[in-house]
Amino acid sequence: MMPLAPSERARNVQLPIIPTVAGWIAETPGTISLGQGVAYYGPPPEAMRAIDRFLAAPGSHPYQPDAGMTDLRAAFEEKLRGENGIDAPFERRIIVTAGANQAFINAVLAICDPGDEVILLVPYYFNHEMAIALAGCRPVCVPTDGNFQPRLDAIEAAVTPRTRAVVTVSPNNPTGAVYSREVLTEINSLCARRGIYHISDEAYEYFTYDRAEHFSPGSLVGDAHTISIYSLSKAYGMASWRIGFLVAPERLFDDLIKVQDTVIVCAPAISQAVAREALRIGRGYCETHRETIAGVRRQVLRRLESASDLLSVPPSRGAFYFFAKVRAAMDDLQLAERLVREHGVAAIPGRTFGVGKECCLRISYGSLTLETATVGIDRLIDGLRKILGA
Amino acid sequence: MMPLAPSERARNVQLPIIPTVAGWIAETPGTISLGQGVAYYGPPPEAMRAIDRFLAAPGSHPYQPDAGMTDLRAAFEEKLRGENGIDAPFERRIIVTAGANQAFINAVLAICDPGDEVILLVPYYFNHEMAIALAGCRPVCVPTDGNFQPRLDAIEAAVTPRTRAVVTVSPNNPTGAVYSREVLTEINSLCARRGIYHISDEAYEYFTYDRAEHFSPGSLVGDAHTISIYSLSKAYGMASWRIGFLVAPERLFDDLIKVQDTVIVCAPAISQAVAREALRIGRGYCETHRETIAGVRRQVLRRLESASDLLSVPPSRGAFYFFAKVRAAMDDLQLAERLVREHGVAAIPGRTFGVGKECCLRISYGSLTLETATVGIDRLIDGLRKILGA
Repeated sequence: MMPLAPSERARNVQLPIIPTVAGWIAETPGTISLGQGVAYYGPPPEAMRAIDRFLAAPGSHPYQPDAGMTDLRAAFEEKLRGENGIDAPFERRIIVTAGANQAFINAVLAICDPGDEVILLVPYYFNHEMAIALAGCRPVCVPTDGNFQPRLDAIEAAVTPRTRAVVTVSPNNPTGAVYSREVLTEINSLCARRGIYHISDEAYEYFTYDRAEHFSPGSLVGDAHTISIYSLSKAYGMASWRIGFLVAPERLFDDLIKVQDTVIVCAPAISQAVAREALRIGRGYCETHRETIAGVRRQVLRRLESASDLLSVPPSRGAFYFFAKVRAAMDDLQLAERLVREHGVAAIPGRTFGVGKECCLRISYGSLTLETATVGIDRLIDGLRKILGA
Repeated sequence: MMPLAPSERARNVQLPIIPTVAGWIAETPGTISLGQGVAYYGPPPEAMRAIDRFLAAPGSHPYQPDAGMTDLRAAFEEKLRGENGIDAPFERRIIVTAGANQAFINAVLAICDPGDEVILLVPYYFNHEMAIALAGCRPVCVPTDGNFQPRLDAIEAAVTPRTRAVVTVSPNNPTGAVYSREVLTEINSLCARRGIYHISDEAYEYFTYDRAEHFSPGSLVGDAHTISIYSLSKAYGMASWRIGFLVAPERLFDDLIKVQDTVIVCAPAISQAVAREALRIGRGYCETHRETIAGVRRQVLRRLESASDLLSVPPSRGAFYFFAKVRAAMDDLQLAERLVREHGVAAIPGRTFGVGKECCLRISYGSLTLETATVGIDRLIDGLRKILGA
């Protein structure tokens, strides 16, 4: 190896796509972004009343407990019991992290040694693949079916003696697919049978449409092998505040605390204080906004379906994404760049999510209004038509 | 391996000592803590004016750039140039992290592959050893001399083809030792000669006493292999806000951004906004408080020296630590626990910092007043006398 070269594990993971696309956007003023996955709204304004109290309280500025502030963890325990059907005493099962990404890499470091394998369903959430690779482990990619639903047989076939976990993301980033209780239960049983963990990323739990229902595999009776991950970034519009939750079997607690102490000591305390207020306000806040997003979603879907000669959009009822398959054998990264530079609309190329063969685009509608959705999708369709010469 | 067992890398690192000691303290009301390394003061109150602006600004709540907010990075570039003599254009060399711990593990992941080695000087900062082990790498421990100063020959002898970096912490946690410009230059040259990185943790840069001077090896002419780490946790009393800085050679930037995106996306934005104000107020804020700590330090040192039959305290002129060698062949962890439970005074046992043979205690004085310092050290001396039967 060249002296002073970056590590192989770092060189081998992709450059984060979001900053790349943000660069194109910055150079193309007026671009409508169907790119980054963010909700259009911020945190509940009332949650900000926590700040004055936080600043006035003694002991707010030194380090806080590694696992998080007690009242926030207790509130999350209550939320889990009431909303998710998970009975997880916070003292030994809940850790507050600086966002769901940190929760995920903490979990990987606590259960995987270098060379171990973790099964991801493709299209995957890119930061999961990156975290596994950076941990010195091997992401094992298993394709989903035509509707982006898990294929149990393919997952089972991918398990080896080095497998330590199967990751599911439902509602899914990047496809919007929502996995049913039955499917998640089957994956969970498979994991139990094979003695591996089920990592369930539920960052989009509140974002379901058309009567789709979110299910938490950690709620299954007798479960002792599910690691559940949550985030306030989307649900409460708190992306920049960096608050997530890691809910794990008790046997992992001490080791997760070691990882947490090493990576970050504790999640930012002022964010924890605001998060506590946000949880007090509760999911009703998110549901009001979800209704608005649902309206935008219908609009986006209608327009995408009108262009079925150009692309197909498998049904999806969750998160705020559609994963469109473009009917052309074109390089997806080049396509995405041209859509920004020539047509003022940004989407994320499928390769970012491990999709190699088809030309796909992730379309995010969480931050759009009815108007930007209309204009944005029109630009996308118009752009595709021109670029593909269709 | 047992199914569902935690990873070996996690099992093999120590449980964080601070929560353990905090547990003893919680069970022993009235304990005076010479334990956790925190400054007695919080952030500059004027820095809080950033909060209203932050909340009122559009775009504060979605994700921020991976590397941090532009104005904060630009301000840190200026600080580095003016105070440290480091010329590091922020665009490709400065990343804002959620504290210095996150900066360190990011650096390790970006330069080390599993099985690679990183040289630590003993006594080491425990989270460094943990980060290297969690990254699947090997911490190589090199003893310091009787005054906790680096031994160049020992470092040189420890370099192997797998070595990727030498870590220095000056002013030092846990010993308080300040390394001279000459020593740091020699270590830096050794690294250059051997084609490895020099990771320089400067979290305590403002805390020097008795005319000791802080030196930043990243300022050396032509340097292209130093990774410098800074923190606002101590200097600006902002531990719970989680803001640190990673300053790296340009060649590592893209890979560091991949790691940052995966671990945390971005440091908490509200903390970045407050940090920007803190930097505007500047190091004068810290220096006022440092004078207060210097008075406490003199008091602590005087009293410790009066008990030279019980312990020896090698000279140290930095951070807010003394590393005392107890003149007894006693288990340091048991000693620390008994000091809390029987004598109401907490210190951190030397084994936490990789010291195996001698019975040592880290004594932190950053959070004490003249009064608690007096009572605390008296309890320590009295306790040692009783426990050791001296």
